[in-house]
Formats: sequence, C-alpha cells, structure tokens
Amino acid sequence: MKSIHIEVLPNAGSSRLPYLEDKLVIVIDVLRATSTMVTALANGCQAIIPVLTPEEALERRLTLPGSLVGGECQALPMEGFDFGNSPFDYVPEKVGGKRVIMTTTNGTRAIRDAIAAPMIWMASFLNMQSIISAIIGLFGDDCRFQGIVVFCAGTEERFDLPDTLCAGMLIEALGPNVILNDLGEAARMLFRSSENQLVDKIRNSVHGKKLISLGFEQDLVYCSTPNILPIIPVFENGEIVWLTEE
Amino acid sequence: MKSIHIEVLPNAGSSRLPYLEDKLVIVIDVLRATSTMVTALANGCQAIIPVLTPEEALERRLTLPGSLVGGECQALPMEGFDFGNSPFDYVPEKVGGKRVIMTTTNGTRAIRDAIAAPMIWMASFLNMQSIISAIIGLFGDDCRFQGIVVFCAGTEERFDLPDTLCAGMLIEALGPNVILNDLGEAARMLFRSSENQLVDKIRNSVHGKKLISLGFEQDLVYCSTPNILPIIPVFENGEIVWLTEE
Repeated sequence: MKSIHIEVLPNAGSSRLPYLEDKLVIVIDVLRATSTMVTALANGCQAIIPVLTPEEALERRLTLPGSLVGGECQALPMEGFDFGNSPFDYVPEKVGGKRVIMTTTNGTRAIRDAIAAPMIWMASFLNMQSIISAIIGLFGDDCRFQGIVVFCAGTEERFDLPDTLCAGMLIEALGPNVILNDLGEAARMLFRSSENQLVDKIRNSVHGKKLISLGFEQDLVYCSTPNILPIIPVFENGEIVWLTEE
Repeated sequence: MKSIHIEVLPNAGSSRLPYLEDKLVIVIDVLRATSTMVTALANGCQAIIPVLTPEEALERRLTLPGSLVGGECQALPMEGFDFGNSPFDYVPEKVGGKRVIMTTTNGTRAIRDAIAAPMIWMASFLNMQSIISAIIGLFGDDCRFQGIVVFCAGTEERFDLPDTLCAGMLIEALGPNVILNDLGEAARMLFRSSENQLVDKIRNSVHGKKLISLGFEQDLVYCSTPNILPIIPVFENGEIVWLTEE
C-alpha cells in the first residue's frame, strides 16, 4: 500500500477547507450524529436525509410522504419530530423501510461542508472496523483518491475530544504508511495514550458531561463501543445509504 | 488554590471567541513569534509592537524614529526589514534599548484576537516556568480573573502541534485543580505522552518540517527548550514589554 495522506479537521464550520475534489471524506460525529446514522441503517432504515435546520427538516417531510423526522437541538429532541438524536430511538420497528430526515447541530453541517468531495462516508466507533477495511481495499496502487480528509464534526465549532479519538483510532489502524497533518498526528497520539480508557475520556469530555447531565449516559457508553456494526454509510444524491460496492 | 478554568483555542482567526473581559490570556506561538519576543526582551529590547501586515510595520516605523522592523512572511524575512523572525536575529547589539515593530503571520493575529482581555501574556517553552509561577501567584482566593484562555496561534488558521504541546506543559504544571475544555484536556494528554520527546514531536510537525526545510533547524531546537528565560512579556498599550509587577 502506498502512503496515504490524511488531513484531520477539528470541527464543522471552518472557513478554510482543503481541496476536496480528489479526496475521500470521512465524517465523524461520535456524540451522536454519525453513531445514530450507522445504527439507523443497521436497523433497516432505508435512507437518512441530513438537513441543516429543524425548519428545513419539516419542509422536506412535506415532499417525502411516509418519511420520519429526527434530530436534536442542544442535544434535546424537538417538538413535532418523530425522534431525537439518541441511537436508541432508531429501532427497527420505527425506522425499518423508512426514510428519516435528520437535523443535528454539528454532524449535518460537517456533511454539508464536505459536499465538494466525490465520496463521503460516515464513521463512528460503532462501524470503525468496516471503515478501516474499506479504506485498505480502496487505497491500492490505482486508487482514484489522492488522500483522506477526516471531518470531525466538533461541538459548536470547537475541537471535540470524542471525535478526535475516533479519528485517532482510524489513523492508528492504517499503520505507519500515513502522512498526517498536525491534528492527525495529535489524534493518533491521543488515541494511543487512552486506548484502554476510551469511555472514561469520552465521559469526561465537555459534550460527554453534557449528555450525562441530560440523562443520556447510556447513549454515550453505546457510542463509545468500537466495531459492532458492519456498515458504511455513504452520502449519495443528498441521502445517506448503505455503501453497496466501490 | 481554587480550581482554574482554562480554555485552549487552537488557532488565531477563530470566528467564535469566548468572553475575554475577565480572563487572563496567554498567547503561544512556539515557532516562532512568542519565542522570539521573549528572546528579544531578554536581550534588552525595550518593547515590541505587534502589527498585522508588513505595510503596517513600515508605516509604524515612520512614526517611531529609531525603531527597528522585524517579522516574516511564510517563515522568510522580508525586504526592507531589519530582521526576520528568527530569535537568533534579536541579539543584544541590535535590539538593546530599541523598540521593534514585529509582524508575524499567526502570532500577531492571536494577540489582536485577544485584545478584549484585561491582561495578555506571551508564552513559549523558553519562559514557561516564569509563566507558571506568575499564574500560581495570581490565581489566589481574591483573584480578579475568572480563568485563563490560552490562545495557540496555530499555523494558517489550523491546529499546530508545537503550540498545543506548549499549552499542555502549562496545564500539566498547574496540577489537578484545573477545569479544561476538550482541547485543554487534549493538550495535557499530548504533553504527557511526549514529555520526553518534545523536540522530536516538534521536528515532525508540519511547521517544524517547513522550518527545517528552510534552514531553521537551530531555531526549532532553541524554541523547544523549556525554562531558560525568566521573563513574562505582557501586552500593554499596544506594546509588549516586561511584566514588572502584578
């Protein structure tokens, strides 16, 4: 395998984006958007439509009969919505065979920021092994991508430790043949130094403490669990669906 | 000592600044602005006037007879300037008793970003012990500051590992009585995991590699040396001078 260039960005809403037209983008929003997307697809959800605002979500519902609306504002569910942003809301009985229109504060913005990229995947601890395997399969000698940009969603335009640890897990698994920006190197160092205490580090993060204070500790523990869902959500034509083949 | 709230920001030019009116701000630009400022003051420079652009620097010189002009653009010295941004340029024979007008890409911008704060100090590895001692002296029970905001200057609006490691050294030295944002926690973790290999980590950073490629490896090694200059540069009335008392 050739060396892979990996650039990690700390949060959505950056004014300076790298050139994305020849990159694979990986969006990470551990607490909780990408974790919830992975879970929803694993539970039979047909597609997730990410939107930026609650108003946009409710408008889109009008054009998509039978669809459901989920998302959060300041980590809490919103009135008129079918679900919040807890992965435990997205059970097979509710999401099976349905489209879900989803708004989240940071994750949706990261996807929109990445829109110029030819391929956008959603990663979380839950589906990390599948993401890693797919990257290794993709980045052979004739790979059409010139590198990977990891968009950590962040929290309110700030660095977020859970997202960065997840990026670090990804980078560490790709081995030594990687060329990293400083945040990529930091992510790998952070992951290495806390690999055996991931849940504790996530629990003590600013976003982690907020979720716990709102009663979502179970969500946090679930979202911190690596490699339990063999799914790669891909953003295609405005929707997030299972990646079928590359 | 009460717990100290410490918020670390990754780079200059952020669109979202915290409330600064009751904070002590520490600006860090290891490679090389704050390291060079500390060195210049140690070598007898009377004051440093940080400005944003080379044009502004040359204009200010006209209003300050006898002053010198220093700074860099893309790490290189500029025409018409008395020095670049290398700390080794700022020797006593040149800067003794003089004012230096200085423009740097990231460090000066961080100072300008922090302008709302009642007190702004410049930190680097070189003067870290003095900064730490002064903070411990300042943050007693009747401290007028509600916390510290550490402005890492960053590199071109991006996270910079040398600045973040320096912030981590500061936080680690303040002990367990600190309340950190996620980047503060990450900075401490990064420092702890590389305390014995600081120079190597700085050498391998994006900015470090760039300086080495331009022939400034000696600058890098010098700027990575902790606790050799007992100076606290403070920004007052548009100038950076020695902190005399607090």
